[in-house]
Amino acid sequence: MNNPLKTLMKPRSVAIIGASPKPYSVGNIILENLRELGYLGKIYLVNPKYQFIDNIKCYPSITNIPDTVDVAIIAVPSKVVPKVLSECGVKGVPTVIIISSGFSEIGGEGEKLNNEIMNIAMEYGIRILGPNTTGILNLIDKFTSSFVKIPEHSKPGNVSMIVQTGIFTATMMRWIFTGEYFRLNKVIGLGNKIDIDDSLALQYLREDPTTKVIIMYMEGLKEPRKFFVEAKKTCVVKPVVLIKAGRTRLGMKASKSHTGSLAVPDEIFNGMCRQAGIIRVEDFKEAFDVVKMLSFYDGFFKGFRLGVASYSGAECVMAADSIEKYGFDLAELSIDTYERISSVAPPYWPKNHPIDLGPILETEDAAGGLITTVDALLSDSNVDILILILPVISEGEGEMIKLGAIEAKTLHSQIIQFKNRYRDKPILVILDGSKAGFEEAKRLFEHDSIPVYDCINKCVRALFYVRWWYEKFRAK
Amino acid sequence: MNNPLKTLMKPRSVAIIGASPKPYSVGNIILENLRELGYLGKIYLVNPKYQFIDNIKCYPSITNIPDTVDVAIIAVPSKVVPKVLSECGVKGVPTVIIISSGFSEIGGEGEKLNNEIMNIAMEYGIRILGPNTTGILNLIDKFTSSFVKIPEHSKPGNVSMIVQTGIFTATMMRWIFTGEYFRLNKVIGLGNKIDIDDSLALQYLREDPTTKVIIMYMEGLKEPRKFFVEAKKTCVVKPVVLIKAGRTRLGMKASKSHTGSLAVPDEIFNGMCRQAGIIRVEDFKEAFDVVKMLSFYDGFFKGFRLGVASYSGAECVMAADSIEKYGFDLAELSIDTYERISSVAPPYWPKNHPIDLGPILETEDAAGGLITTVDALLSDSNVDILILILPVISEGEGEMIKLGAIEAKTLHSQIIQFKNRYRDKPILVILDGSKAGFEEAKRLFEHDSIPVYDCINKCVRALFYVRWWYEKFRAK
Repeated sequence: MNNPLKTLMKPRSVAIIGASPKPYSVGNIILENLRELGYLGKIYLVNPKYQFIDNIKCYPSITNIPDTVDVAIIAVPSKVVPKVLSECGVKGVPTVIIISSGFSEIGGEGEKLNNEIMNIAMEYGIRILGPNTTGILNLIDKFTSSFVKIPEHSKPGNVSMIVQTGIFTATMMRWIFTGEYFRLNKVIGLGNKIDIDDSLALQYLREDPTTKVIIMYMEGLKEPRKFFVEAKKTCVVKPVVLIKAGRTRLGMKASKSHTGSLAVPDEIFNGMCRQAGIIRVEDFKEAFDVVKMLSFYDGFFKGFRLGVASYSGAECVMAADSIEKYGFDLAELSIDTYERISSVAPPYWPKNHPIDLGPILETEDAAGGLITTVDALLSDSNVDILILILPVISEGEGEMIKLGAIEAKTLHSQIIQFKNRYRDKPILVILDGSKAGFEEAKRLFEHDSIPVYDCINKCVRALFYVRWWYEKFRAK
Repeated sequence: MNNPLKTLMKPRSVAIIGASPKPYSVGNIILENLRELGYLGKIYLVNPKYQFIDNIKCYPSITNIPDTVDVAIIAVPSKVVPKVLSECGVKGVPTVIIISSGFSEIGGEGEKLNNEIMNIAMEYGIRILGPNTTGILNLIDKFTSSFVKIPEHSKPGNVSMIVQTGIFTATMMRWIFTGEYFRLNKVIGLGNKIDIDDSLALQYLREDPTTKVIIMYMEGLKEPRKFFVEAKKTCVVKPVVLIKAGRTRLGMKASKSHTGSLAVPDEIFNGMCRQAGIIRVEDFKEAFDVVKMLSFYDGFFKGFRLGVASYSGAECVMAADSIEKYGFDLAELSIDTYERISSVAPPYWPKNHPIDLGPILETEDAAGGLITTVDALLSDSNVDILILILPVISEGEGEMIKLGAIEAKTLHSQIIQFKNRYRDKPILVILDGSKAGFEEAKRLFEHDSIPVYDCINKCVRALFYVRWWYEKFRAK
């Protein structure tokens, strides 16, 4: 069977039912997003109240459009949805995105409306995404039904999301656009998923060549077996990072999706994820820690022997703890590596691993010493991954420089050269110091695809998940 | 025995040995910090190279000072430390802070120097803090030996730190000053702790009336029994949040303090913490999550039945999951509470707990509805603590307002009124939305002592630690 997402993600023509000239209204933002993204298909507007919106002709009903419509985006009050959906049926629209909320997620009246639209869809053979969703974002093919403003000139990345939620998808997208530096490729908002579900979305993204990492948020599953078959096939090709909520009795009760879903006990669900190769994390913040590592270093991890260098003895100890806790090994550094580092370190420098950079950063040529050390570690054939723990500040924190802290810009220019020189050796950076310095350095480094963490424990935990997937599931 | 920290934390006179006119040098920042803090005791400078620094007379040796000196801050190269320490002995200085590094933490030569200074201290009966430390910060009595610049007009808070590390204390202090909103009261940097140790520091802070919460970073313990006796006495009076590193084989190896320390297996150490009442956390970021809750709501927690309201159904589910995972109960809301909330909600609003604010935020008077809901929850006698999950933005993200997101300033003004009205009911806030909105709201809320988290899971986990201590150890 043809996956309806093929049409939904890249329609040749789209109708916005509920188009509006009102600034910041859902119908208006969708139009604005499509234009700013540079959608190349035809856009038709539908709203009986207007004849023109933004100089585009506006039709009273979708049936009046003198052309085929691949996708209808429905953004009208829930009570009107059955009527416009029937009209889509008459018009022969194959796929619709129902943005509107007010269906089974509110119970009672909404449940009735839900059954009504399911019957209409069945009658006409219409495939539905939603309802209660922000729908689609496809930055590659420049199509969207999102009512969250897409930042201008958004370069597509390699991370795609599948989300079973309405408004939360909107706030998460806003967070990613404003606070994270990995880049989205596609978003599939399933909403109440009355038709198109996780399995279809996963199948679609598996076959999508530009998607390299998938994040999923899920509450319930109607057909777990079907899903895990798709998941298994996907996880040998690309990693799937999942947040599954509704895992406890209270959580299930709070989830509106629990009615139609099979109640799979969380431990069993966990076991199924493990078998399928899904990386299951606790929450979105943990997901982002993992996703940026996978996204920035897609396919780069060849081994997991760690080289570690830190400006602080305490951070050396905490790093060593995390490394053992998550079952990693510190690389056995070669004699040559120790010798090269010793050449830039004071005589009392202890030849231990993790490398304590403290004494090196106290020398006259601290910057040169740091560069030599990083180069020595990266060129050591026993080191697969380099973890750097450094103190960072922003401009004007002069006295911290005396203490060995490094300005964000300087640090970035020192380290970035190694990214290209050692292409197959991921560099992971943990930064202490000032908040402003941290945020600035995070922006600079992550723009250049070097992931930054504010805590060694978070970094090594993320790497743990990455290794688990690389070693067990990734097709060689 | 008199605790030497009594003198060290509040000396009537201090000598800076290694004072310097060079900007950003350690000897210079210490002087600047003392002056800017408004230290009321006498400051004497010692450095044979200068006659005056910043118009203050500079003595060639501490023995030349024509006055008693309570504390000498020693900031000279490690090789010179034995000489100046002997002079402190001759002068009759009772307590010194050795800032300098280059002792047992570097092994070899440093080990020898270490033994030398221990012998000198023994001979003269000098008590030593350090070496290899930033030493003391006392914002109440306006004394410091810190070489990290203390921000001007730092208001003292109720959080004190005991830290066994050199440079890491400096970067952590910088992070707290620039990125956190709980406020420090005192810092005791133990450095290599060759004399004054965790037990003395804990005893001192236990008896300190303005310290309400203690954070500790520790690698090794020479006398665990002594420490846990002090800890037990402390934890019935005020909470202690501990990060203990060197917990694994690799971590112990990386810790320079392991030589002189008793190797207590981590599980046994954990058990001892649990018995004593110490809140042991994984890392500093987790510590800050707990500390700000304890600091902002010092003594406020009367019970732990949770009221929860969220703008998003997905967040309701994730909140419910976290609540069950960490063993909390959702409060049984009274009929009156549901009725008050129903009065501002559309008819389809589902009368469930966690409260889904979504439908309320879609009404004409969303702000009024939010306020009524918050008030109803806080006035419910079954609710001890209110958790609010809200979507926040900064100015100029207009279309997000249409989606129910609230500008940081507006949100703050809506919620802050409840802080004083319901003094004994802690409010905990989780914010989604834009990064800029989050940072702005965090600043506004936390300045008013309402803790903000970027993830429900982190918030409930922190509350778990708080409850554990409140219910089992806090003297009633």
